[in-house]
Amino acid sequence: MVLPVRHRRPVGRVRGAEALVGSLVGAGVDVCFMNPGTSEMHFVQALDDVPAMRGVLTLFEGVATGAADAHARITGRPAAVLLHLGPGLGNGMANLHNARRAGTPLLCVVGAHATDHVRHDAPLESDITALARTVSGWVHTCGDVRDVADDAVRAVAAATERGGQVATLVLPADVSWSDGGVPAPPLPAAAPFPPAASRVTDAAKAVREPGAVILLGGPALTARAMDAAGRVAAATGARLLVETFPRRWDTGAGRPRVDKLAYFAEQALEQLDGASSLVLAGARSPVSFFGYPGVPGDLVPDGATVVGLADAATDAAAALEALAAEVAPDAVAEPAPRDAPEPAPGPLDVRSLCAAVAATLPEDAIVVDESLTAAAVLAPALQTAAPHTQLALTGGAIGQGPPAAVGAAVAAPDRPVVAVQADGSALYTLQALWTQAREQLDVTTVLINNAAYAILRVELARTGAGEAAHSGRAGRMLTLTDPTPDFVALATGYGVPARRVETTEDLLDALRWAQREPGPHLIEAIVPAVG
Amino acid sequence: MVLPVRHRRPVGRVRGAEALVGSLVGAGVDVCFMNPGTSEMHFVQALDDVPAMRGVLTLFEGVATGAADAHARITGRPAAVLLHLGPGLGNGMANLHNARRAGTPLLCVVGAHATDHVRHDAPLESDITALARTVSGWVHTCGDVRDVADDAVRAVAAATERGGQVATLVLPADVSWSDGGVPAPPLPAAAPFPPAASRVTDAAKAVREPGAVILLGGPALTARAMDAAGRVAAATGARLLVETFPRRWDTGAGRPRVDKLAYFAEQALEQLDGASSLVLAGARSPVSFFGYPGVPGDLVPDGATVVGLADAATDAAAALEALAAEVAPDAVAEPAPRDAPEPAPGPLDVRSLCAAVAATLPEDAIVVDESLTAAAVLAPALQTAAPHTQLALTGGAIGQGPPAAVGAAVAAPDRPVVAVQADGSALYTLQALWTQAREQLDVTTVLINNAAYAILRVELARTGAGEAAHSGRAGRMLTLTDPTPDFVALATGYGVPARRVETTEDLLDALRWAQREPGPHLIEAIVPAVG
Repeated sequence: MVLPVRHRRPVGRVRGAEALVGSLVGAGVDVCFMNPGTSEMHFVQALDDVPAMRGVLTLFEGVATGAADAHARITGRPAAVLLHLGPGLGNGMANLHNARRAGTPLLCVVGAHATDHVRHDAPLESDITALARTVSGWVHTCGDVRDVADDAVRAVAAATERGGQVATLVLPADVSWSDGGVPAPPLPAAAPFPPAASRVTDAAKAVREPGAVILLGGPALTARAMDAAGRVAAATGARLLVETFPRRWDTGAGRPRVDKLAYFAEQALEQLDGASSLVLAGARSPVSFFGYPGVPGDLVPDGATVVGLADAATDAAAALEALAAEVAPDAVAEPAPRDAPEPAPGPLDVRSLCAAVAATLPEDAIVVDESLTAAAVLAPALQTAAPHTQLALTGGAIGQGPPAAVGAAVAAPDRPVVAVQADGSALYTLQALWTQAREQLDVTTVLINNAAYAILRVELARTGAGEAAHSGRAGRMLTLTDPTPDFVALATGYGVPARRVETTEDLLDALRWAQREPGPHLIEAIVPAVG
Repeated sequence: MVLPVRHRRPVGRVRGAEALVGSLVGAGVDVCFMNPGTSEMHFVQALDDVPAMRGVLTLFEGVATGAADAHARITGRPAAVLLHLGPGLGNGMANLHNARRAGTPLLCVVGAHATDHVRHDAPLESDITALARTVSGWVHTCGDVRDVADDAVRAVAAATERGGQVATLVLPADVSWSDGGVPAPPLPAAAPFPPAASRVTDAAKAVREPGAVILLGGPALTARAMDAAGRVAAATGARLLVETFPRRWDTGAGRPRVDKLAYFAEQALEQLDGASSLVLAGARSPVSFFGYPGVPGDLVPDGATVVGLADAATDAAAALEALAAEVAPDAVAEPAPRDAPEPAPGPLDVRSLCAAVAATLPEDAIVVDESLTAAAVLAPALQTAAPHTQLALTGGAIGQGPPAAVGAAVAAPDRPVVAVQADGSALYTLQALWTQAREQLDVTTVLINNAAYAILRVELARTGAGEAAHSGRAGRMLTLTDPTPDFVALATGYGVPARRVETTEDLLDALRWAQREPGPHLIEAIVPAVG
């Protein structure tokens, strides 16, 4: 095996970090989003020895983990991050949580103190393993430089298990800096489980009855899986629904028309009302995002049968194709038409904003959707826009959008990325704009500035907690006023050209400007707050 | 007992959140730094019912936790944060790590799903307890609305144990929203341990020998403890050293002159070379911040006796006073003179920058020091400046400075806060500027823009990892160029007036401008990178 390592020492005598990085490249992991510190210096230095590994610097670990999540969702292969001890991992936790919920194959390398140094309980020492276990399906601390490359390729393989998970390799500094690394050949990725014939039979029985609903999610949202689902729907009349926060959804004109399950439990219950069965294809059984007094957490309607056709670890496309072969051998999926009407002119609102994004969406774009309150309007608008791929906030940990735009753009440099982004969430990880500028990524961020945590205002009203959501001491905790952040200034500070728009006409003009020029852009769209 | 709750329901029938917040105020916790989400809506609403509780909104949980840490360091009482489920806690982890290392009494309230909702494993569900344990000395999940106020006052008391620790109360949404809360009276704070007579005797023996070093840290850096240490030094010739990253240090002119232990192990070993004994007063036995090949992690010189006079949980001031009574009954501490020379004019460097800060430092200021590579120059410069209090980066988790400035300014509205801030670290939690603007806090941030993770360049050279720290693919992971962040634009975006300076004269002018006007200011000081 030829590893892409420029050996400056005899083979088998490379430094641990060099053996590790070279073996990662051999295993197909050739991008690493990073926030290195002292304990990771030899990993960093190995970038000079292994030119096939691309290091992408971020200003904050949450940017690195969110970028890696999106990168893997787009490429379908494990992505890597390099973090600095427990606090660095802590900063990356929220987007690792989203990656866990997405079932993303993600290799998380956490640099640690040198093995000998741990006993001194130096200031940065903490329980990295305990922290990592809360988001990882696999955690291992490398104990010897001779094992580091083997550990690395095992971690990459582990990341592909169970349909994709976070695998964390804790890397003591002495393992990195010591000589004696032995490059390791790649291991095979875990294959998804084949669909179970009995589940296909059960699903076929269910969809032949009136009132069946097929809930698509996880791996069942590729173009291939969607087409099979569309054929089943065309032949049987079964309704298709997509889970609320899909990890990766190929949609738009020419693909089967599918509604999304609503975020709010009451609306989701209405959508599911009267369903005779729920066939789960890659999706989990639907539950309310939060619990509320008097609202059921389990959204399966009374009397509906639940059939688990394919879980996240199963080849969902194959399962849907087997189902289509049984119930719809000659059917053709009914494609969504291409129909993105011109948005209404005048002052912007959520509806005209979403229509403008849909009308101008480039072919084969990637849409990063952290639009939150606007999402219920955005999804139908995009359904008939140019075909594209959507990435959503899978785990509810906000601050995922700007990092995900980084990862998607690095993964697919030939595809434009359009990020539709809520303001409060953007402010969690806005540093991602700097990486967009440094790497000159083709990202257009449409920043919806409504000067509020709008979704929390809705929630405050829903919980019955307050009449005074817009005023008073409580309301002040939900507004982003006094001062309202100036996203044009913030983007400029991070090196991203930006414009502020308040009308549909100006938004359309700004979208064309952003798409014409290379590199990242931000459009701050001033929109009245809902709720 | 009269609780500061505006009862809209009969006593004993208040909502859980209202009983909780009212009881916190009764226990002396009257500020809560927060990033609430849906599960915390009733806590937020309770701000309208309990006007004595001040809610301070932050744009990111790491700002809330860093602010609470600093608030408690200044007031000496527990401070509170409100976070949103596991991901919110994750975002707050880095500064909770710093709080843990500081021995800060901190109450961390983490909202969680309603008890009934946990079994649905909804998208935001994760193992909050496991996460919390890595930074907390006390973790409890409230199980019943009737207990919530009792749990809260116990958490506040727990935060004061062991010299100060993080106490985490997990608060299910249904406990907050249910009626039946019973306000609880405050519990006594844990008292520090009295000094052990045998340790005082041992320390007295040690300091009477030539070559003794007293290492001061933790609670031994108050004006009172420092004065006692200064008397011991004056009488015996023992040398005084302050730990590298003090949690709260009363220093400046008129207080005993004390050097800081150096950050780099080699320099610290030189400082300690020849010590006959190390008397630990509130400080831990010195260890290297990181492990390096061939450098000892334990910095105690060969042959030196280590005497633990007072640990972090002991009344260090009383211990030092007992020691002074024994060895220096009539001594007077030699105060540092007031002598802050005018800085050299011309283009700024680290030396002139630190001199300018020292020369203009207001009386009784709080200095937040996250200056990293500049710290070795800043500390001696401030030693003879106006008397002030310093807060340092106790746990090495960067991104502590801007949040700490928030917390310090909220804790002491009558004291000006001067934050001397490295650029790379600032970018972790720069959202703190927005809270400074919203609360109109008297914070002057001197942002040292050297366009690099300068300390990592030094580390890269030290580890022997690379000759190419300034160039190449590795070096690119340590620079903040291409583009260099524009901190004036960023501060403006968050609503903080800002200026860029490149000369001593302009820095002095900007410092006077910032001190003259109320509210926060940021001065971006362009300084050549070291290393």
